[in-house]
Amino acid sequence: MTSTPADLRAARTPADLHAARTPADLRATHTGPTSGLADGYAQANLIAVPRDWAYDVLLFTQRNPKPCPVLDVTDEGGTTTTLAAGADLRRDVPRYRVWEHGELVDEPTDATAHWREDLVAFLIGCSFSFETALKRADVPLRHVEQGRNVPMYVTDVQCRPAGRLHGPMVVSMRYVPEDLVDTAIAVTARMPAVHGAPVHVGDPAALGIRDLAAPDFGDAAEPHPGDVPVFWACGVTPQAAVMASKPPFAITHAPGYMFVTDVPDTAYVV
Amino acid sequence: MTSTPADLRAARTPADLHAARTPADLRATHTGPTSGLADGYAQANLIAVPRDWAYDVLLFTQRNPKPCPVLDVTDEGGTTTTLAAGADLRRDVPRYRVWEHGELVDEPTDATAHWREDLVAFLIGCSFSFETALKRADVPLRHVEQGRNVPMYVTDVQCRPAGRLHGPMVVSMRYVPEDLVDTAIAVTARMPAVHGAPVHVGDPAALGIRDLAAPDFGDAAEPHPGDVPVFWACGVTPQAAVMASKPPFAITHAPGYMFVTDVPDTAYVV
Repeated sequence: MTSTPADLRAARTPADLHAARTPADLRATHTGPTSGLADGYAQANLIAVPRDWAYDVLLFTQRNPKPCPVLDVTDEGGTTTTLAAGADLRRDVPRYRVWEHGELVDEPTDATAHWREDLVAFLIGCSFSFETALKRADVPLRHVEQGRNVPMYVTDVQCRPAGRLHGPMVVSMRYVPEDLVDTAIAVTARMPAVHGAPVHVGDPAALGIRDLAAPDFGDAAEPHPGDVPVFWACGVTPQAAVMASKPPFAITHAPGYMFVTDVPDTAYVV
Repeated sequence: MTSTPADLRAARTPADLHAARTPADLRATHTGPTSGLADGYAQANLIAVPRDWAYDVLLFTQRNPKPCPVLDVTDEGGTTTTLAAGADLRRDVPRYRVWEHGELVDEPTDATAHWREDLVAFLIGCSFSFETALKRADVPLRHVEQGRNVPMYVTDVQCRPAGRLHGPMVVSMRYVPEDLVDTAIAVTARMPAVHGAPVHVGDPAALGIRDLAAPDFGDAAEPHPGDVPVFWACGVTPQAAVMASKPPFAITHAPGYMFVTDVPDTAYVV
């Protein structure tokens, strides 16, 4: 009953997901959020833009490495990645978002019909990749326990602009027992390629977040008594830049519906 | 007798260099190699290319992070950097190389006359930035002791191509006493933004290097008995890509003649 990344990319339903933990179910595909799945494997955010916008995106990632640590960039028109042999970026993300001039126009589970020859795809580190390390350090994951997507929030912290791209930083939030906050910081600080140490601990108002119960993306999580909100930079940030900067076209993953890679999460521990 | 990065950028001669260690000599400028100088401050490689080639360069750095860790990228036409307030990238590198179609056409100490409005400049981490940390760990620096530039070699290891850019990896080499090699690895591994851990220890033939006494750039160093050659990825690699890929125009630093930043080298310790 081992689960491979290829199995998980292939699992389509919750029932399939469990079946996919055997190698026999490679062809089924998963369409739900991926938090708590693919234990031990890194997950990635996706943003694909026309070649004309690729420099802006790549420069934006270089100037904003906390929310946008780049793991791989395809060649123009490429649909494969060094992160997962045999994967097809047009269909192996559980759910996509398709953007025109900054507006969400479709949210398919297969983006093949929307893909263009001039697209360059960026795979960006995801904080789900350090959740296994948190669990091993006995830091509980409330959203996983509660069977939910992680909550994500648009902050009032502006990213450093790059060319035509600008926008606010997005963060993911995990409730952490107060006496384990230092552990959560130490564990995640060692994984900068998947967002690294938190950007903030405590008062959400410091990031311009009004109501933790009303996330901009994902699901609200329920805190336990003594829990403190801890915020990590999030790879949905490029989507916030798409909304703010309105490139003519982009395809991204849907928040929390990540591309599961073949790369062990430990490969990103420094 | 303190020396600031602005003093060192301003020092023009060896005599000035010592004078520059006082704040009174800010306007003189240095034109020699910078190894062993600017203790405690990071140094950087430079490559500036026309905007049309900037994506190729930035993608090349993303795909080859060991030799090309990016510290800053200017906007098109920009001549300043976040790494040193008030510095002018057109004249504050001790010595430049000007390239046309992959050929070296000039090696001025001031590149202002060559600079173009369409240039994008990349500042890339330099291994001189970890030499202070090596010294603090009692790892001797033979080239500094011997008053020489560090030796650098073109290897037969090909970088991962990016767009129109391709070329071999360049390495710097330091002779390290055999019993201190582990220390040198441990110290530098913690500084990935300035090339991090060595790419090779020992036999130069493994990198296609024939003769350590005949470096491709910089000066040969003399080993002490029991020394082992240790090789680090080098920020001259983009220049090797310029030579191999022949962009119409580029300006780089001269190997070993680095841009001295205001950033403490400890800022790049993870």
